[in-house]
Amino acid sequence: MSDRILITYSIVGEHAKEIADAIRVEQSIEFPIELASARIQRDVVGQIESLSSPVNNKTEVVISYDQRVVGGELPQLLNVLWGNVSLIPGVGVTDISLPDSVLKNFKGPRFGVPGLRQLFDAPTRPLITTALKPMGSSASELAEMATVLALAGFDMIKDDHSLANQPWATWRTRVEAVASAVAQANEKSGNRTLYAPSLNLPADQIFQAAHEAKSLGAGALLLLPGISGFDAMRAIAEDDSIALPIQSHPAMLGSMLTSRDQGLSHSILLGTLMRLAGADISIFPNFSGRFSFTQEECLSITTSARQPLGKLKPIWVAPAGGMSLDRIPEMRKIYGTSLALLIGGALSRGSLEHNAQAMVASVS
Amino acid sequence: MSDRILITYSIVGEHAKEIADAIRVEQSIEFPIELASARIQRDVVGQIESLSSPVNNKTEVVISYDQRVVGGELPQLLNVLWGNVSLIPGVGVTDISLPDSVLKNFKGPRFGVPGLRQLFDAPTRPLITTALKPMGSSASELAEMATVLALAGFDMIKDDHSLANQPWATWRTRVEAVASAVAQANEKSGNRTLYAPSLNLPADQIFQAAHEAKSLGAGALLLLPGISGFDAMRAIAEDDSIALPIQSHPAMLGSMLTSRDQGLSHSILLGTLMRLAGADISIFPNFSGRFSFTQEECLSITTSARQPLGKLKPIWVAPAGGMSLDRIPEMRKIYGTSLALLIGGALSRGSLEHNAQAMVASVS
Repeated sequence: MSDRILITYSIVGEHAKEIADAIRVEQSIEFPIELASARIQRDVVGQIESLSSPVNNKTEVVISYDQRVVGGELPQLLNVLWGNVSLIPGVGVTDISLPDSVLKNFKGPRFGVPGLRQLFDAPTRPLITTALKPMGSSASELAEMATVLALAGFDMIKDDHSLANQPWATWRTRVEAVASAVAQANEKSGNRTLYAPSLNLPADQIFQAAHEAKSLGAGALLLLPGISGFDAMRAIAEDDSIALPIQSHPAMLGSMLTSRDQGLSHSILLGTLMRLAGADISIFPNFSGRFSFTQEECLSITTSARQPLGKLKPIWVAPAGGMSLDRIPEMRKIYGTSLALLIGGALSRGSLEHNAQAMVASVS
Repeated sequence: MSDRILITYSIVGEHAKEIADAIRVEQSIEFPIELASARIQRDVVGQIESLSSPVNNKTEVVISYDQRVVGGELPQLLNVLWGNVSLIPGVGVTDISLPDSVLKNFKGPRFGVPGLRQLFDAPTRPLITTALKPMGSSASELAEMATVLALAGFDMIKDDHSLANQPWATWRTRVEAVASAVAQANEKSGNRTLYAPSLNLPADQIFQAAHEAKSLGAGALLLLPGISGFDAMRAIAEDDSIALPIQSHPAMLGSMLTSRDQGLSHSILLGTLMRLAGADISIFPNFSGRFSFTQEECLSITTSARQPLGKLKPIWVAPAGGMSLDRIPEMRKIYGTSLALLIGGALSRGSLEHNAQAMVASVS
């Protein structure tokens, strides 16, 4: 048992056992089980470990899979977790337990909580981060904004995730201008602000762009695993010649989260998977913001960001999406210290300089 | 208007106008609109073009976006289409219209319907395809299976999508053994069967693996855009030094489809996006198979696979997932001729050789 992958499914309706039997085959051999050899039935097909009594018309079923089914790679781990079963209505995944034989293949976050505490000389305080906005601004306008934020003492300034190669500020022009502005501000202030450009770029350019960003002076990276694929983030995080902190953004992942009856738990998608795939900071919508996550869902992400997961470092949570300065005390209370505060548009309400300084002062 | 991207949203509930106003900002500048300049409000933020009267508590809203918001690249097009809005419950996308200024950036399928008709000398008949299964088989067992299928005259034989780097048949060993078996069978029979290995592989190996597959003798490729990202498929499809037909598989995309109130339409996700991203054949679950798609949903994919889309070629549909020989006449009637029949496990029920020959004979 200890060397098997355990996945807990929540199955709606009266036929949970039949559906579980379909899932354990669908997620492994995808083949009529009675036609498979005894060895394959025993070693390769998933096995039902437990089946709860239904509560509110939902049954919890634990299916275990031989770790060899994953073959040690993240794409196939994602496929076992949520490949074809994603097409079955009324099935959700509420928990996953990975044995060391799987976890040993993943380096996870390069920095995580301890690494960024050291990097930013922030032994106990939350990180102070923001985003460059709005799309439509020129590279020099974004660079001016970055100068103000860097002088104020932010830890990290990321591109808005949707900044790509728009004509108003193409990627290379923007990264060069902003990285240079942040470097000059740091020189002036003595701060160590990092700029994280968005790698919202074509798949055949993303790895090269990560290197180029670094050579242009970017000190961190923003990845969109729902668009680039989780494994692109994993590969960039593991690349010793890049070695920059990574923020992950949940764009395009929402459909796995918005149904109560179908999808992955918030904890797995935005905690465990982000961590496995090398994010140092997982950005997600805070409760009572522009989106609909509940406080409980947000805290479940925090739990999986921090709880033991093989030798993988714990990661920072960045609950965001319409946050403002007045939410900071509440957020610090709820999320504790391994919190990356991320306030974007609200800093531009009035004086950016004043608001930026106030945000930094509030946690110093 | 003709140069703008039109996206039609279906919004549940009484506050459709407010939600639409939130979406048009969220999917563009992600910034308090009143703080943006008049130019950005006009040129960058999405604009509501129409808003229907609610029917069954749903309102259809058309929002247009300046094509510059996309910047000519697929990752940002996906982000505009379904990035942050994926996190809002009760919102679905039912239609998308792309102007030529966006479409001109995409080559789409290299072969499509006309290209594969020519390649397989199949001017009117459906394509005959299958999958190598089950996981747990050795490379030589899969190669033996491929020999039988190739001798029977199949057009394409793909890896089961979940075959990755499992110890029973690692990727390179498998691709080498199967490609070689298919080549030998073709030499013997005079057939032109193509083998499509699954590129269910790490992001930093997938492009090299596509080249390696070709050099090992693979004649086609299977991509999993829900796991690799759509843009990895686009990049491989556009690479003139690879230039192999591509089958796309819907693994991990299901959550965007299983809710009636949230997600992308089947037509957009498995038709338009697969085509934009270069699939020649879009595999999806047929109705009355192992999954829950309706006939109407399947036919909507067929429509977007074939209807005019800039200069992009139409693509094949491969409705699959628990199909058997007795479904062929019905499928041909419903889907017409640009149909890639895909029968997997059912061919192993009894004599594989007999069933394979019967499937080929049924469409010759």
